[in-house]
Amino acid sequence: MINVGVLGATGMVGQRFIQLLDKHPDFELTTLAASSRSAGKRYEDATNWYLDDAIPDSVKDITVVETSVDKIPNDVDILFSSLPTKFAAKIEPQLAEKFIVASNASAMRMEKDVPLVIPEVNPEFLDLTEIQQKNRGWDGFIVTNPNCSTIALTLTLKPIYDNFNINRVYVSTMQAVSGAGYNGVPSMAIVDNLVPYIGSEEEKMEIETLHLLGNLDGLDVKLPNFKLSASCHRVAVIDGHTEAVFIELDENVDIDSIRNKMANFKALPQELGLYSAPTNPVIVREEDDRPQPRMDRNADGGMAVTAGRLRKDEAFDNSFKYVLVGHNTVRGAAGASVLNAELINKTKM
Amino acid sequence: MINVGVLGATGMVGQRFIQLLDKHPDFELTTLAASSRSAGKRYEDATNWYLDDAIPDSVKDITVVETSVDKIPNDVDILFSSLPTKFAAKIEPQLAEKFIVASNASAMRMEKDVPLVIPEVNPEFLDLTEIQQKNRGWDGFIVTNPNCSTIALTLTLKPIYDNFNINRVYVSTMQAVSGAGYNGVPSMAIVDNLVPYIGSEEEKMEIETLHLLGNLDGLDVKLPNFKLSASCHRVAVIDGHTEAVFIELDENVDIDSIRNKMANFKALPQELGLYSAPTNPVIVREEDDRPQPRMDRNADGGMAVTAGRLRKDEAFDNSFKYVLVGHNTVRGAAGASVLNAELINKTKM
Amino acid sequence: MINVGVLGATGMVGQRFIQLLDKHPDFELTTLAASSRSAGKRYEDATNWYLDDAIPDSVKDITVVETSVDKIPNDVDILFSSLPTKFAAKIEPQLAEKFIVASNASAMRMEKDVPLVIPEVNPEFLDLTEIQQKNRGWDGFIVTNPNCSTIALTLTLKPIYDNFNINRVYVSTMQAVSGAGYNGVPSMAIVDNLVPYIGSEEEKMEIETLHLLGNLDGLDVKLPNFKLSASCHRVAVIDGHTEAVFIELDENVDIDSIRNKMANFKALPQELGLYSAPTNPVIVREEDDRPQPRMDRNADGGMAVTAGRLRKDEAFDNSFKYVLVGHNTVRGAAGASVLNAELINKTKM
Amino acid sequence: MINVGVLGATGMVGQRFIQLLDKHPDFELTTLAASSRSAGKRYEDATNWYLDDAIPDSVKDITVVETSVDKIPNDVDILFSSLPTKFAAKIEPQLAEKFIVASNASAMRMEKDVPLVIPEVNPEFLDLTEIQQKNRGWDGFIVTNPNCSTIALTLTLKPIYDNFNINRVYVSTMQAVSGAGYNGVPSMAIVDNLVPYIGSEEEKMEIETLHLLGNLDGLDVKLPNFKLSASCHRVAVIDGHTEAVFIELDENVDIDSIRNKMANFKALPQELGLYSAPTNPVIVREEDDRPQPRMDRNADGGMAVTAGRLRKDEAFDNSFKYVLVGHNTVRGAAGASVLNAELINKTKM
Repeated sequence: MINVGVLGATGMVGQRFIQLLDKHPDFELTTLAASSRSAGKRYEDATNWYLDDAIPDSVKDITVVETSVDKIPNDVDILFSSLPTKFAAKIEPQLAEKFIVASNASAMRMEKDVPLVIPEVNPEFLDLTEIQQKNRGWDGFIVTNPNCSTIALTLTLKPIYDNFNINRVYVSTMQAVSGAGYNGVPSMAIVDNLVPYIGSEEEKMEIETLHLLGNLDGLDVKLPNFKLSASCHRVAVIDGHTEAVFIELDENVDIDSIRNKMANFKALPQELGLYSAPTNPVIVREEDDRPQPRMDRNADGGMAVTAGRLRKDEAFDNSFKYVLVGHNTVRGAAGASVLNAELINKTKM
Repeated sequence: MINVGVLGATGMVGQRFIQLLDKHPDFELTTLAASSRSAGKRYEDATNWYLDDAIPDSVKDITVVETSVDKIPNDVDILFSSLPTKFAAKIEPQLAEKFIVASNASAMRMEKDVPLVIPEVNPEFLDLTEIQQKNRGWDGFIVTNPNCSTIALTLTLKPIYDNFNINRVYVSTMQAVSGAGYNGVPSMAIVDNLVPYIGSEEEKMEIETLHLLGNLDGLDVKLPNFKLSASCHRVAVIDGHTEAVFIELDENVDIDSIRNKMANFKALPQELGLYSAPTNPVIVREEDDRPQPRMDRNADGGMAVTAGRLRKDEAFDNSFKYVLVGHNTVRGAAGASVLNAELINKTKM
Repeated sequence: MINVGVLGATGMVGQRFIQLLDKHPDFELTTLAASSRSAGKRYEDATNWYLDDAIPDSVKDITVVETSVDKIPNDVDILFSSLPTKFAAKIEPQLAEKFIVASNASAMRMEKDVPLVIPEVNPEFLDLTEIQQKNRGWDGFIVTNPNCSTIALTLTLKPIYDNFNINRVYVSTMQAVSGAGYNGVPSMAIVDNLVPYIGSEEEKMEIETLHLLGNLDGLDVKLPNFKLSASCHRVAVIDGHTEAVFIELDENVDIDSIRNKMANFKALPQELGLYSAPTNPVIVREEDDRPQPRMDRNADGGMAVTAGRLRKDEAFDNSFKYVLVGHNTVRGAAGASVLNAELINKTKM
Repeated sequence: MINVGVLGATGMVGQRFIQLLDKHPDFELTTLAASSRSAGKRYEDATNWYLDDAIPDSVKDITVVETSVDKIPNDVDILFSSLPTKFAAKIEPQLAEKFIVASNASAMRMEKDVPLVIPEVNPEFLDLTEIQQKNRGWDGFIVTNPNCSTIALTLTLKPIYDNFNINRVYVSTMQAVSGAGYNGVPSMAIVDNLVPYIGSEEEKMEIETLHLLGNLDGLDVKLPNFKLSASCHRVAVIDGHTEAVFIELDENVDIDSIRNKMANFKALPQELGLYSAPTNPVIVREEDDRPQPRMDRNADGGMAVTAGRLRKDEAFDNSFKYVLVGHNTVRGAAGASVLNAELINKTKM
């Protein structure tokens, strides 16, 4: 068993980390770090548990430590980070001197020697960690996962990109409120309403998606030839991002062939049998009115993305459209970091 | 004063008709028609009033009549129809033998001699009514307005189309539940959820929008050179459709120029000073997080469409994006028919 | 293994039955009955699966049969019924000639020889089945469970009633929309709104609760000495009924003592170790702002009721108040019938 | 015209003040005060306008001043306060040295010489202002209105209390999120959920209601003989508090007589024809499923309370129950202060 810890343990994503790590076959959750306000308390007393399922017994009595290098026990190997961006930018590099940091924070994602990875999409980017360690003289390293809406989209794009020539992609999102943290979206903004704006979200989707589908060339990433435009919106859904996707190819569209490639897509995590890997990263549904967030977000424990309404776009040549739903705090956040760590554990430790 | 009636008077859109016609300076609402179940009752007893504002005193005591030609009094001039499609297909032509029918139903929209009109967009299509009367030997005629999501979109596209060369349009909608009628969307489908499908809605948007922007050539409509692709979704909002729009032009994008054309757009209803015409058909807001349905749907009595987040699309050349909100049962339904009738009253009667 | 079937298998409660019976150690679900429209189809094709968790593989290929006596295979022992009241009134007696019917329908609840049972509250009422069989000459029998809001309330009242003298009870409910079935509550009625009325619900709570706490005396039930008044309301929650309870005792209130009785309450299902029995029928929480339906409805698999805000009522002598949350379609419907069947299986078969 | 100002002008209740004072026949809104962060800015730039109706043109260009005695112009006569409790406790007494303060804050409500007033219920309490001025040596004075849920309840209790002998009252509330301010209730707490707790709300209802129905005796209030117990809960509604009320009288219940007393209740504001006074303070509806917050909160401009489901309580002798809806930020907050000021203007200035 590998000892692991969670940074930002009392927050929304921190709680998902704890939920996903409970009874994990390879990782033993021994350390919970949070702000100084929580430090010294039993985890159950320090946290306001938000999730539908009860707080696991195994963490209730863990004493929360402050998030600083000297407070993390030396016998921890991997730290899962859901720290706020600014604090992550400062503390994650300090922690990486000693520990492996699997981070959901955006702070380090665009550093050239820090891999931004989805295990089904670009596992080879993990090799950057060796350069990272050498460059920076660290014993540990940082690996990051993309933004929640990017992960769900990119998992569906990967089998298309691998098999067809994409010309352009438009995506319009309807995102869950949990993505903004417990206090992120006031109820006054979302009951009988929606908010057509999420700060920096469109930029992240437009940059990260192409980065993930690119080819690593030394420290550089050779980006794909297509571009992507996003419009991002917050709706009255607790968990589960929905995205409407329009794609133009450089070739004729055969919907059956596209469906087959998506539905049969498997990759390294499936081959390696990683514990948190979904059987199928993309589930394709045939009903007219699916996917729906309440019914599809928990597919395969929340680690599979569900696509539906796959159809030809009669308006434009070589074009098709679909809708996807992915669990934003499982596959799109905590689960993404955990899967990264499982891949590291299997291939790098 | 012109005597008018409402068909489908107890339904959602029927109630909006009543609300908009209350205290109208030119139209006197004298006739309310509904199913045989309601016929013979006082309107207040026959209806389950759904709107936030109280039922107008002026209609409470009107005795509901059945929706059939011989039950509509002869002194009525204009009938507003919010009948279900199938029934409208049968009864509207019968009624048009005697009456002017301003219809929100989709049944007759695509008949060649039946004008599909937004007064700010294609008022000249009203001339088709003369051909319609001659062809069919009717004393009255039918005029229709487009689907709710089409109206809001087309009002924002018109000033762009008139001033720039549009290449392609993608639109992803987040539509209010009132569009489906009071019993249309179960709460189980929309609380902590959304439904990524609205039957026939995408087809209507893709066809009607181009039709409205086309040029009338005899009975034919010469369509614009661009195409439009829609993806339509239902969200937990009572009233107000939100739409994310992506547009590619055939030329360089100057956002200030586009904003000016949208914000300063005025057309025939504004010139004629029609009673229900908004001062500005399109209101452009500058805040990051607007428009929002709860706050913007009632702009100018629900008759103006609000656009916001107007921005360059950095992913593609000659491209920009914006978000719009329009009131689906006012501007997008009852208000659309009423404005059509006001235009007819001013120019054809 | 005992073969069991579900009547009304495609409905909301029917789906919960299927979910709860999947992988049950004693019951094998072999028969799914529904309307003639569904009969003959594979269950997966016949149903529109509404639940958050996926449809169990074990039922996908079962061929749905029509709900009639001759279509139910003879090797079935227990039928779980979530039939509509009127149909249940007609068909359940027919089925009970051959089968044990564990019913969630209200039709037969008030028949003198039909036990209305919560296993933790009045398991001895099951003895009525012997009289029922003798009276009616049936090989099977009918056992019923109470209405959803009654079950949650009565589970919390039982340890109070057993230990203190209750004078009067007031209860005001905030009930989930799933209780009305998938199409029961329109979204127009519940987004930014609530409905302060649920047909017959108050009467059921007021009658059933006292009945359950009464003493069986032959075929009669000697009711407790106190009365209960209910006011019932529907709110925008998918699953989980919340109830605000005011109680006046005939004696001094010692909150700690009441808390202890509720929190330590165990009964026959716990002693017998019934598979679906919660460890504690009532969980008492200490936080100011709990229980909340989204966070507490799934306590102990949805079979435990969570009480909180237990406090003295300073307005009145000998009085206290609390708030409870119970899962309306698990503990309050399908789970209630399943627990009844487990008790029958252990004690009567 | 009397010059008036609003303190806390950018908040939720502050915006309602502005909305209600726009085009007021007697009050001219000349001063808007807010925090130092907003001071010096145009009101339109300083505020994030939350209401469904547009910001009135008349206030857009008013320069916001800081909330301090020396920044309020001397020509202002009445200040409407929606300040946070702690700040109100400090600044309202300072302001009352010069100005009349009509306050929605709870800070001063329980001061013996500060009247807590609902004009329809206890207008005579306003006489306390003379004692207040004499005691404290102020040129102005403070008058307060009760908490939002108290006002709606007390308006319906007043005609009952005046005509029957009340023994006890139980009330269970379902309150709108706007009561907590724009950022008060996170969407994570209210989508598919409710919160069964509102800090200090139950205490306020239990104390203020009796105080309002009491008799003034010098500086003391002789309380009624009955007691009231409240349980308060937050639900997913934007505006409009719903309350389920259980009442026991000391005499036989005649529902028709109670209905008549409620429906025909009129008081001093109606006699004086105060501008914001509703025609009927209590509207009684007969439908099974009313009142509902979305449909009834705006009754008579949001100033009337709607009661419904008035019925005998069959569980207890001499008892009945009903449900009410009142607009929490109009009748329950800003409108309450404005009506107080109108009464002062008519009777004390």
